[in-house]
Amino acid sequence: MTEVNSNYQLIRNQSIRICSFLSIEDHISQPVMYVSPPKWQLGHTTWFFEQFVLKDGMDNYKLFDPDFAFIFNSYYNFIGERVVRYRRGNVTRPSVEKVHEYREYVDKFMAEFLISPNAHAFKEVIALGLNHEQQHQELLVTDIKYILGANPLWPVYDVNSHYEEVYNTSDGLVSIDEGVYEIGYNGTGFCFDNEMGRHKVYLPKYTLQNRLVTNGEYLEFVKSGAYKQFEWWFDDAWTWINNEKINSPLHWHSIDNEWYHFTLAGLKKIDTEALLCHVSYYEACAFAEWKGMRLPTEAEWELASGMLDWGKRWEWTNSAYLPYPGYLKAEGAVGEYNGKFMVNQMVLKGSSTATPEGHGRSTYRNFFHTNMRWQYSGIRLALK
Amino acid sequence: MTEVNSNYQLIRNQSIRICSFLSIEDHISQPVMYVSPPKWQLGHTTWFFEQFVLKDGMDNYKLFDPDFAFIFNSYYNFIGERVVRYRRGNVTRPSVEKVHEYREYVDKFMAEFLISPNAHAFKEVIALGLNHEQQHQELLVTDIKYILGANPLWPVYDVNSHYEEVYNTSDGLVSIDEGVYEIGYNGTGFCFDNEMGRHKVYLPKYTLQNRLVTNGEYLEFVKSGAYKQFEWWFDDAWTWINNEKINSPLHWHSIDNEWYHFTLAGLKKIDTEALLCHVSYYEACAFAEWKGMRLPTEAEWELASGMLDWGKRWEWTNSAYLPYPGYLKAEGAVGEYNGKFMVNQMVLKGSSTATPEGHGRSTYRNFFHTNMRWQYSGIRLALK
Amino acid sequence: MTEVNSNYQLIRNQSIRICSFLSIEDHISQPVMYVSPPKWQLGHTTWFFEQFVLKDGMDNYKLFDPDFAFIFNSYYNFIGERVVRYRRGNVTRPSVEKVHEYREYVDKFMAEFLISPNAHAFKEVIALGLNHEQQHQELLVTDIKYILGANPLWPVYDVNSHYEEVYNTSDGLVSIDEGVYEIGYNGTGFCFDNEMGRHKVYLPKYTLQNRLVTNGEYLEFVKSGAYKQFEWWFDDAWTWINNEKINSPLHWHSIDNEWYHFTLAGLKKIDTEALLCHVSYYEACAFAEWKGMRLPTEAEWELASGMLDWGKRWEWTNSAYLPYPGYLKAEGAVGEYNGKFMVNQMVLKGSSTATPEGHGRSTYRNFFHTNMRWQYSGIRLALK
Amino acid sequence: MTEVNSNYQLIRNQSIRICSFLSIEDHISQPVMYVSPPKWQLGHTTWFFEQFVLKDGMDNYKLFDPDFAFIFNSYYNFIGERVVRYRRGNVTRPSVEKVHEYREYVDKFMAEFLISPNAHAFKEVIALGLNHEQQHQELLVTDIKYILGANPLWPVYDVNSHYEEVYNTSDGLVSIDEGVYEIGYNGTGFCFDNEMGRHKVYLPKYTLQNRLVTNGEYLEFVKSGAYKQFEWWFDDAWTWINNEKINSPLHWHSIDNEWYHFTLAGLKKIDTEALLCHVSYYEACAFAEWKGMRLPTEAEWELASGMLDWGKRWEWTNSAYLPYPGYLKAEGAVGEYNGKFMVNQMVLKGSSTATPEGHGRSTYRNFFHTNMRWQYSGIRLALK
Repeated sequence: MTEVNSNYQLIRNQSIRICSFLSIEDHISQPVMYVSPPKWQLGHTTWFFEQFVLKDGMDNYKLFDPDFAFIFNSYYNFIGERVVRYRRGNVTRPSVEKVHEYREYVDKFMAEFLISPNAHAFKEVIALGLNHEQQHQELLVTDIKYILGANPLWPVYDVNSHYEEVYNTSDGLVSIDEGVYEIGYNGTGFCFDNEMGRHKVYLPKYTLQNRLVTNGEYLEFVKSGAYKQFEWWFDDAWTWINNEKINSPLHWHSIDNEWYHFTLAGLKKIDTEALLCHVSYYEACAFAEWKGMRLPTEAEWELASGMLDWGKRWEWTNSAYLPYPGYLKAEGAVGEYNGKFMVNQMVLKGSSTATPEGHGRSTYRNFFHTNMRWQYSGIRLALK
Repeated sequence: MTEVNSNYQLIRNQSIRICSFLSIEDHISQPVMYVSPPKWQLGHTTWFFEQFVLKDGMDNYKLFDPDFAFIFNSYYNFIGERVVRYRRGNVTRPSVEKVHEYREYVDKFMAEFLISPNAHAFKEVIALGLNHEQQHQELLVTDIKYILGANPLWPVYDVNSHYEEVYNTSDGLVSIDEGVYEIGYNGTGFCFDNEMGRHKVYLPKYTLQNRLVTNGEYLEFVKSGAYKQFEWWFDDAWTWINNEKINSPLHWHSIDNEWYHFTLAGLKKIDTEALLCHVSYYEACAFAEWKGMRLPTEAEWELASGMLDWGKRWEWTNSAYLPYPGYLKAEGAVGEYNGKFMVNQMVLKGSSTATPEGHGRSTYRNFFHTNMRWQYSGIRLALK
Repeated sequence: MTEVNSNYQLIRNQSIRICSFLSIEDHISQPVMYVSPPKWQLGHTTWFFEQFVLKDGMDNYKLFDPDFAFIFNSYYNFIGERVVRYRRGNVTRPSVEKVHEYREYVDKFMAEFLISPNAHAFKEVIALGLNHEQQHQELLVTDIKYILGANPLWPVYDVNSHYEEVYNTSDGLVSIDEGVYEIGYNGTGFCFDNEMGRHKVYLPKYTLQNRLVTNGEYLEFVKSGAYKQFEWWFDDAWTWINNEKINSPLHWHSIDNEWYHFTLAGLKKIDTEALLCHVSYYEACAFAEWKGMRLPTEAEWELASGMLDWGKRWEWTNSAYLPYPGYLKAEGAVGEYNGKFMVNQMVLKGSSTATPEGHGRSTYRNFFHTNMRWQYSGIRLALK
Repeated sequence: MTEVNSNYQLIRNQSIRICSFLSIEDHISQPVMYVSPPKWQLGHTTWFFEQFVLKDGMDNYKLFDPDFAFIFNSYYNFIGERVVRYRRGNVTRPSVEKVHEYREYVDKFMAEFLISPNAHAFKEVIALGLNHEQQHQELLVTDIKYILGANPLWPVYDVNSHYEEVYNTSDGLVSIDEGVYEIGYNGTGFCFDNEMGRHKVYLPKYTLQNRLVTNGEYLEFVKSGAYKQFEWWFDDAWTWINNEKINSPLHWHSIDNEWYHFTLAGLKKIDTEALLCHVSYYEACAFAEWKGMRLPTEAEWELASGMLDWGKRWEWTNSAYLPYPGYLKAEGAVGEYNGKFMVNQMVLKGSSTATPEGHGRSTYRNFFHTNMRWQYSGIRLALK
């Protein structure tokens, strides 16, 4: 498993690299419930390997600190009590430095373990751990953006940040004929359990735009007064924009009648050519309605994915996040990974600038509640 | 349109009949936001005909009272300002008697109108108005049950109520072969816009139980401690049962270690043979998980509907309430009827004991949020 | 006890008279937690006599209905479980008619009891019951005003209502010299336990206005923009007016740039000469600050009371509602009457147009939380 | 002003010393709204001198960073917009290090300023600034205790912390005869505006215990089941203990049927001889009621203060925090210091182990809302 070994170090190092732009103080903040402090994520992804690999697989492995299971368990009720989610920001100790020691400790033992005979039996859970870490790398980026964006001084994360402006490189339409097709994962590499099993779907003829919606297009929607006009919005969405006083995508700010947005490279004027991001499903649907178009379904997207310019924004689909036919939850704690979230959420397809290299797939099923928008989530339109 | 005319009176009278078991005081209560006071519903269904038929269609029609448009508009933002939903219970005046006068006034003019030459042009909106009234008749029954069930004295609505205990009359399994099928409405009678357009779906081979879950089966689930075991529940559901202290279906009460339920005929011991009702989607899914089974999808249910014993409980499906391919909202206020609710809800199929005679159809798409359970909602299981 | 007997009937009848202007529907509404449905109050005041007099004092007395103790107990934890306060509006049954029967039943037995030899031993609790009923008569008026005022149609309670406009009949200042004085009740008639014991206080020389603030004076405060200027407000008050979007006294409405207020005789233009009412302690203090004046203390008010024009508005004082030196709670349930509210509230002195004849006293201690304003509460100013 | 100068450095250094036991991460946390992050307090106390002294008094003074006025203004609405209180924990930047630089920058200029001719004119506001800093030193200690106490690992702040266990050194009773006395500040040194003006009060004869309540005495109250018995509690208190699930003082934990409390030196068994602390006014009153005693009033305490063993816990009094007769708010922003909090709070007298040396006075008026208990607040009893 030498390849996994080198992969392991590469992936683990990337989490450290993302946080290397942070001050110690930035690691602790939890401005809203769904944003986790970066320190917690550094610990939590490490705990995954300790809990699910080393503790079971390595003889005489000694836990770095028995308290860490309590502190860094995210939601695996199977494992026992845990710090409730909205309290993660209160846990100022262990220190960031201690969490780095924890990572080094676990990584050292994992390096040993990966070349040991036991490793093979843990191949799948190790792959899951690495993909889990990559998911948190994306969350680290978006959580950090939320944390710094909540600071009234709008501090810069990295002046050279490449997470922000991206552009369409294609245009035109992509059409697929009516037919019975297959979707879902059928490769031999890693996939999450929610991508299985591969199954047939019937699709009518459909047509997708081969480009994503730009800031400029969305700005027209904003300027048209659409956030004050009930007719574009779901009933739940109308309640949401009124209760939360929503009037533009997340991180957008109107200053002296000019629209700016907070980016990881600081506050910038809206670039009208760049791809829109940080919109909720509600906003994606309202915009589509306003345009006289619609969102693609998950199956439509997946089947056309080979012909599409992915654009590097997560794309809201009009498909609910539900189990595929024949979906089976894994046994035990790992079974809590995906299944228990298959309600009240919508699927996003594609990937974003914050998605780690090699982590995406056309069968990937990302999912969020309909009002969430701190990811790099954008819009592709389909013809009605 | 003589047939419509007699239909009109029959349907309108049924709302009065349902409320005839109520005291004046019962007409006013709104114990939770989603339950509307019966008085409000009597006025609102009447307002529909005044607003969408008489006001536009009848020459020289004089509104019964101009204020009523404000009081009895439910959610049609198109029509103008309205009493916000959670405040309906505060509106003690107009009196119940006045609302009855309003009904008589509108019905008298509708009787005239239905035999006038103008009627034909309004045929569709009249049919919608009558189906709307029937939907409210079902809500009247379940809202009344909620209102009386919230009273610590558990008063009787009607000692002969036929809304409660119903039983399975079939058993065994129904299987359908793999294939591309069509679902959605294609008849010539009335249907709601959300049932169109008829479209193809691919279905794998599947098998449904030809019976609904009974109280006795669900009681085992309750007694097994399932409401205290996270592993059966979605993450959102686990939050819900803990925050709301849910430990059984709505209207169930444990008294001296015996399970009772509130019915419209008063408090009764649970009948273990009768069909379960008043469960949420969360509970339906948790129960299915516990049984090692699953809920049917909407398409599976609809295709098999001819072979199924419907059981007279609304049946939760595992399908999100989303628009059918090619769905088009109607223009204007009537377009607010269904489309704006197509998010965050799941479809229920079938009908219930509270569904008016002739109102159900196999293509009917009922829908509620995942934690709602004051309807007569039950469970049919499918094999995994 | 013939005098008590006739008093009893007079006082009891007055509750009925107040409610005689209501529809059945009006009796049920509870638009906010602190407003009790009139039906509940009719039952609750009756339950007081049944619970504390007849049940203990009359041989062979049979409860009208054992459930009523549960339904109509307000807050006497000593007596057992009760309907939580915010749920009173849900209890549509027993009917208003049944509650009237309950009143007649209890009154009949009370009439017998009052001329029986046992009556003397219950003299004090009967007096408490009658004063309790009078307190609820004032609450009935203000609760009814809140209920009808929450109706967007602003219905009329009584076109001849005398509860509304009242005017100053005096002017000028009243000064009292420095000295040690006595306050608190020392008469031989009825008083509440919180008015005892009479005790000495030192007062510096002080000067009160012999008039209350008028609507016109307060309107200037409103028009000056004071509700948008933090400098007049306590920190808690500033939070309150911002969270609740308060911009004027309760029941005031700005319509087409003209100020109106809802009265029991319907919506009317503000009468600038009439005495201000429906302001909170927060508003009273902010107004005094704006005027460069202050509120009187309870002791200042009470000592000067003989020289003051009371004005028929409850007057906020700058005294916290705390026990007088030597205050002793009564034993048992009756001890819950006043003592447990002696925190977080401020004292009001005087009386209002809604106070029953003969119920007021200069030693009377009315009290409400600092943000409450549905009583007829106004302002008298003192010189700084 | 050499004396002030040395005082200035001594006091300023003490804030740094208190925070020297913290990790960087500890400086950022705000686990509840009323606890401010230590970093914020280090900045805020510094901002006071920059804003109210250097900016106005020193020629050519250049602000350290113009953004800091926004970040570190606590509540002075006069000064302009500010970070709302519950968001202070989100502000991860400026860094702790930067705030230390800010302190050094301001202190350097203050050192210059204090020996300049202008200093005299700012004497009072400088004294206010230093007393303000001392108040924050006490808050720093109690906020840090809250922050670390909210960490499930209960980390140690300082193993030698002297803030915790203190003991009675006297016993017996102190009685004062009836009379007219004077309270309020009349010295020549610093006092807060709320301690003025000195004024007469009449007091009846009264008797106070010359000792504070111990943990052991309060433990009996806890063990008696008092937190489950409504009769000891105010109505508001009963709601509070039920909603918040309060069953003991703050920082107390029942572990395996043994009572522990979190201290700044870590988790320890309750020392039954030590003085009780971390109780709310609600708990102090309930305990007094249970004992058949009462709390002293502010005036009673102040007059007897020379004869009392202060005990080093803040002592809840039964006096509301209201302005003294003739109280005048200062002009401008400094006028927001005390006056706007004179509502809904109760006075505490004495001082605590966390009160800086020399900061206390018998006329000092500390104040908190009735449910607050994160200060070292305890109980002295008076005879009824």
